[in-house]
Amino acid sequence: MITEGETTTSYPLSPRNRVKRLHERGSYDKATIHGLLDASMLCHVSYVVDGQPYCTPTFFWREENNLYWHGSSASRMLRNQSDGQRACLTVAHLDSLVLARCGFNHSADYRAVMAFGTAYLVTDAAEKERALVAMVDRFFPDRTATLRQSTVQEIKATSVIAMEIEQASAKIRSKGVADDDEDYELPIYAERIPVRTVLGAPEPCPRLLDGVERPASLRGYSEGRLLEDALRDAHFAHYAGG
Amino acid sequence: MITEGETTTSYPLSPRNRVKRLHERGSYDKATIHGLLDASMLCHVSYVVDGQPYCTPTFFWREENNLYWHGSSASRMLRNQSDGQRACLTVAHLDSLVLARCGFNHSADYRAVMAFGTAYLVTDAAEKERALVAMVDRFFPDRTATLRQSTVQEIKATSVIAMEIEQASAKIRSKGVADDDEDYELPIYAERIPVRTVLGAPEPCPRLLDGVERPASLRGYSEGRLLEDALRDAHFAHYAGG
Repeated sequence: MITEGETTTSYPLSPRNRVKRLHERGSYDKATIHGLLDASMLCHVSYVVDGQPYCTPTFFWREENNLYWHGSSASRMLRNQSDGQRACLTVAHLDSLVLARCGFNHSADYRAVMAFGTAYLVTDAAEKERALVAMVDRFFPDRTATLRQSTVQEIKATSVIAMEIEQASAKIRSKGVADDDEDYELPIYAERIPVRTVLGAPEPCPRLLDGVERPASLRGYSEGRLLEDALRDAHFAHYAGG
Repeated sequence: MITEGETTTSYPLSPRNRVKRLHERGSYDKATIHGLLDASMLCHVSYVVDGQPYCTPTFFWREENNLYWHGSSASRMLRNQSDGQRACLTVAHLDSLVLARCGFNHSADYRAVMAFGTAYLVTDAAEKERALVAMVDRFFPDRTATLRQSTVQEIKATSVIAMEIEQASAKIRSKGVADDDEDYELPIYAERIPVRTVLGAPEPCPRLLDGVERPASLRGYSEGRLLEDALRDAHFAHYAGG
């Protein structure tokens, strides 16, 4: 049973993050929520500017209860707001299309997380430096040490946004076709069509110098693998399971 | 050159939808924008409730300059607002991960659309009836005619949101590894990792009646095909290219 107030293993429940429809699909468990976040690279972040909501697709990563993402227009928005700005960061994994025996029961299997908090521009030099390493190494473990060092200008041109997760919820459907009992008697075709996001064969840059080989740290990114599995493994490798 | 004001083939340019960063990736062309929207089933919609932005993943479809999606919590929000609510609907296709020779040039190939407008609850009976058919048939052409008819209660329990696209922009990156000229001289590994969202083998409902076969209209949804190709074809079939 879910009760009000935060525990060490779940996010606090409030009217904001309470899963309102079909509540049997909802979860506030941190392990579930973190697992879905760590299996994603792409998120969508919502902000408000002058009453207009913006929904921006961007790359992000999680570090404990904090989410980080790139600046772009958000940084412009946040630059003059030292006290931060309300935001909602969402990830969604589409797992199947579900064709039922009536229109109402057509659906999809999916796993989604919505996380709420106050976004702020990372201005602390040490926090920003650490974030710029994680922005690469969380996806490609140990890669930063092999790269040409960032210039002062590049660091200045990159803005990092951070948000502590104040509330979050996961919503999961994974039951395929689920028709009304009496509809199973009807001669109507129904099916589940699985959907997967997979990696293709890596394409080495055609301008690699002779003798430069693919590092072993990238072996998790192999042809045919699920993107989410590669991302989850990389997160584990970088944060050592944290 | 893009000029102020709407034409028949592009959305009007304003501070809201102007692509602000890396503008060479931006497009306001309707054919480009519609093509990306029609290749998607999943979108993320942003709304504001009491100053808090919400980013909700949901299914949607396009009909000319209008976008439609499911109600859920949005309908509750909109029910008492006959004049509508500002919204932003975004779709993003992730095409690759790009590993460059410095952190700053790490990137991804992607195709994204942001569409802005005022969302309203579809209350007109004829418009809602048409939308409930399109909600299925836009994805699975001619399917509604084969299904058990919707009940009055089901129709009442389904809310449909619509939004005319007032402004929109597409942002596309498709260049793989793009390093600074001098960095190509460095012995650093770089690559592009393709990402694809594909269909698995359809799984017929285990409770199908004897003799019920998969309809020919679903043949576009075949194992190994790109989800986006199946969706684009289905949109074309339902709207006859409109």
